[in-house]
Amino acid sequence: MICDRLAIIGPGLLGASIAKAVRARLPGTRISVWARREAAVQELLGDGAADAASTELAEVVSDADLVVLCVPIGAMRDLAAGMAGNLKPGCIVTDVGSVKAAVCESLAPLFTHPTEFVGSHPMAGSEESGAAYSDPDLFRDSLCILTPTGANTPKAIQQVTQFWELLGSRVTQMSPDAHDAAVGFVSHLPHLLAATLLNAIQSGDPAAFDVCGNGLRDSTRIAAGPAPMWAGILRANENNVRRGIEAMIEKLREAERILHNEAELESFLATARDIRRRLKNKTSCPTGESAAHH
Amino acid sequence: MICDRLAIIGPGLLGASIAKAVRARLPGTRISVWARREAAVQELLGDGAADAASTELAEVVSDADLVVLCVPIGAMRDLAAGMAGNLKPGCIVTDVGSVKAAVCESLAPLFTHPTEFVGSHPMAGSEESGAAYSDPDLFRDSLCILTPTGANTPKAIQQVTQFWELLGSRVTQMSPDAHDAAVGFVSHLPHLLAATLLNAIQSGDPAAFDVCGNGLRDSTRIAAGPAPMWAGILRANENNVRRGIEAMIEKLREAERILHNEAELESFLATARDIRRRLKNKTSCPTGESAAHH
Repeated sequence: MICDRLAIIGPGLLGASIAKAVRARLPGTRISVWARREAAVQELLGDGAADAASTELAEVVSDADLVVLCVPIGAMRDLAAGMAGNLKPGCIVTDVGSVKAAVCESLAPLFTHPTEFVGSHPMAGSEESGAAYSDPDLFRDSLCILTPTGANTPKAIQQVTQFWELLGSRVTQMSPDAHDAAVGFVSHLPHLLAATLLNAIQSGDPAAFDVCGNGLRDSTRIAAGPAPMWAGILRANENNVRRGIEAMIEKLREAERILHNEAELESFLATARDIRRRLKNKTSCPTGESAAHH
Repeated sequence: MICDRLAIIGPGLLGASIAKAVRARLPGTRISVWARREAAVQELLGDGAADAASTELAEVVSDADLVVLCVPIGAMRDLAAGMAGNLKPGCIVTDVGSVKAAVCESLAPLFTHPTEFVGSHPMAGSEESGAAYSDPDLFRDSLCILTPTGANTPKAIQQVTQFWELLGSRVTQMSPDAHDAAVGFVSHLPHLLAATLLNAIQSGDPAAFDVCGNGLRDSTRIAAGPAPMWAGILRANENNVRRGIEAMIEKLREAERILHNEAELESFLATARDIRRRLKNKTSCPTGESAAHH
């Protein structure tokens, strides 16, 4: 049994999707959910997504085998500190945070033997937020990056791996720092760029939005995501995001220099096209030999 | 009748989609297609997409009421010059080019009374190219921007408008310069950004592509488009693209400055989020009062 008793902290898009996925795929598991608001608790109980729900953290986590923190990064530390004294021996804690170095650094020390923290980043979600958009198949065919450290036991790593695999994810491992560097480039930088592009058009020629086509729509979809959550993510990964902005400005200057030279411009675009076509054809998960390559 | 005899110059994604759309929606129209390669001619004749096809330009256009140039921008002028002496009086010529000032400037003088050129930019397409991806519904619910000039007659403008409307487009009018400025921001700049982002990641941390999720996939989809075609488009709209790059770098510097300030960063992201959510809910066509607003 991966877990008999699961506690989910936070019933947002990810937390509610985990509840639904576990309900569907591991029906014997008892699911308890912590929510900040009493109204959310009543909703959870009403629609059967959880067996128990409460605004009292201790009540939700006290008999859990596995706790998944599904709150914005900025809210994690206080909640983790609030639950640390109330876990049963052997309880494993994980999270869904999009930044791992800061999260692992602040959370891991709170959960020491006989409890343990293993960082997770399920790369699933959408620009929508809230339980209303939750989906039991949200994690299917998605990549989940585990960021264990030397302090983790093989048993805990295996349990968290099996948990995400049960939900349909393919799991890979990276160090927290390697995770943040990579995800800074492929997730946080694209988010900031999409927002920046919209703001640049708004400043430069807002009437241009009237002739927007699917290109702009697709390339800025992610910018519709929740601003407070993304502000927290970008700040928690500030150094890598800064590095990404600098890399981007440097390449934009290169593009600007070659704009008048058809052959060089075509080669610049062809390089990107080939990269993009390879992305398209590959699954979002590294294959065996490249997993844990960092 | 919008046209009894239609000539399509170039059987790529757009040309072949126009042929299929006209076949489906205006079955009485005789469709002739010019292709550069004899093999493409045989294919067109074989699959019934055209009533006639040839590598001889004069043969294809000589009895047409309407000619649609569906070739890359760089190839337009020579083809237009090659057909200009072979049109029947009253023939209207239009195109599908993504840049309008340069195209209208070089093509309009070739088609004088009793023929006439009206520039069109159907904002439809995909990252795929070639007749194999053609679709009779490609233009449905898309925006088509007409860029008539003072030299155009109301009759020609009306005929080209009705043609695109027949294919399912909603038609608006802008000046060629206003078109290029607006489309530079909402189409050409996003394309260059997507390519630049992929190249920046490739330079900075190519292994990061291993953990790419749907965010990067969506935001760079357009970069998979044909490099030679896009190099031609970006160069033909060079000044506006340059302006877009500068606007983008300026906003990236702003984002960089506020990255450490949670409130300002959140407000930056929230502004973009609100713009994006409005884009999502609106059709791609301006409403009556804002049409022809430039």
